[in-house]
Amino acid sequence: MAGSKEQFPDVKGGGSLILAWQIKNKHVLVVGGGEVAAGRILNVLDADALVTVICPYSGLNPEVRHRVEQKQVQHIDRLFEPVDLEALPHPSGDAERTGPPDMVLVAIDDPDASSQIWKLCKKLRIAANIADVPPECDFYFGSVHRDGPLQIMVSTNGKGPRLAASIRKFIAASLPQDVGNAIERIGRLRMKLREIAPETSEGPKRMKWMSKVSDKLTWNEMCDLTDEDMDNILKYYNGGKVPEVDVIKGMRGGKAPEDLDVFDGSFGFSIGL
Amino acid sequence: MAGSKEQFPDVKGGGSLILAWQIKNKHVLVVGGGEVAAGRILNVLDADALVTVICPYSGLNPEVRHRVEQKQVQHIDRLFEPVDLEALPHPSGDAERTGPPDMVLVAIDDPDASSQIWKLCKKLRIAANIADVPPECDFYFGSVHRDGPLQIMVSTNGKGPRLAASIRKFIAASLPQDVGNAIERIGRLRMKLREIAPETSEGPKRMKWMSKVSDKLTWNEMCDLTDEDMDNILKYYNGGKVPEVDVIKGMRGGKAPEDLDVFDGSFGFSIGL
Repeated sequence: MAGSKEQFPDVKGGGSLILAWQIKNKHVLVVGGGEVAAGRILNVLDADALVTVICPYSGLNPEVRHRVEQKQVQHIDRLFEPVDLEALPHPSGDAERTGPPDMVLVAIDDPDASSQIWKLCKKLRIAANIADVPPECDFYFGSVHRDGPLQIMVSTNGKGPRLAASIRKFIAASLPQDVGNAIERIGRLRMKLREIAPETSEGPKRMKWMSKVSDKLTWNEMCDLTDEDMDNILKYYNGGKVPEVDVIKGMRGGKAPEDLDVFDGSFGFSIGL
Repeated sequence: MAGSKEQFPDVKGGGSLILAWQIKNKHVLVVGGGEVAAGRILNVLDADALVTVICPYSGLNPEVRHRVEQKQVQHIDRLFEPVDLEALPHPSGDAERTGPPDMVLVAIDDPDASSQIWKLCKKLRIAANIADVPPECDFYFGSVHRDGPLQIMVSTNGKGPRLAASIRKFIAASLPQDVGNAIERIGRLRMKLREIAPETSEGPKRMKWMSKVSDKLTWNEMCDLTDEDMDNILKYYNGGKVPEVDVIKGMRGGKAPEDLDVFDGSFGFSIGL
């Protein structure tokens, strides 16, 4: 079938493009200070954004007021004005960074004002979401499960928000316990590997070996990896092998590995069996 | 505890902002035509984007060549030039829509050229992803499970791409069978409800009633809903009730409901028991 057209996936269409947006240290403007705004603010703070909230103080709900008081966000105590999109003071206080925000989230009960902000954003090419007005959104939020480094987002593409939340809860309950911690440990092993084999040319070998590790260990075994275990597993990297978990456990406390197929710097070569 | 600070969720930080990006009829430029580009192209076509691929014909892999031949994408048969970002012909052929694309995805084996495109995108405020160069990405792609209108995206925030794929497969295998179809049916019921109660002022009542329906039916029962069943369930909307599934099944073939708590236009009022 090589070369035939049937081998390529058909285009399904009708979906969203689900993306993990990187807004660490980016400037997000939230217009409004009610319940929806509070949810948006937490969403973007959890992704390490720098946040400005524009809303009269009297309109802040308790959660947003708490974020303002804790200085988790910069607060501008008045209604939005069009000039805000072009000359917004930066939350860092750095006057040179005054300018358009990177993203705008609007959550106010004023459809006309909302629509105006949307049009301004589009003119200035700023990504924006006007709450509850799907046609005036570059992107939608979804129902997200978070467990440490693991994030799982469920979207029904607007067909059933309630079902999205129920599927999110179902997934959270079905996932292996402590899976976030397992991913954290594997991330740490990956980091240690990059330290001992930093060359770009090692990329494919690193990736292949990490895949072997991920496939070999159970979630529980990943969770149990100590830093010593990781250093011991890494001794097998040059030989391209991944040891059995029992072997790794046997090496705890500085014991020599029972399995000899280990590259050890002191030998200067890999002892292949 | 009302008013105390402990009631508000702590900011966790360290996550991405996972979003369902709306690129239907938006113009996405893909620079490159290899395997990674092929994956990106399918991703954005599945979200109904209009796509331009810039890459010499000789550099197209079989899948991308297939998409070009099938006219699923517009193809520019040469290397990228900086002017492309400001004056890109629109895939629709409409000369008035010539201009910057809405999103740029770069997947070429040329780090210098990639970096140049990234800088140009940032100058022009165009959202961009340079494959394999995390610092030159406004967003990352993740491992996405799709079942009709349902999309589930798994991100490990770069800690373990292999684990993300394995969690995606685990979720796909754990989900109730036919859940995508169930969501499709509920989406159709929601659409029918909007037809019989279109007023904006009905919004909260519609949302509350749809939640009741979603909570009451099992996934299998949702899948089994016929159009006749939906019309019958909707007779209960004005009374704010959701009938038992047995009652709905009993109404098939035009039978009167056994349960009388139905608003029926011919009575002109709701018969509450």
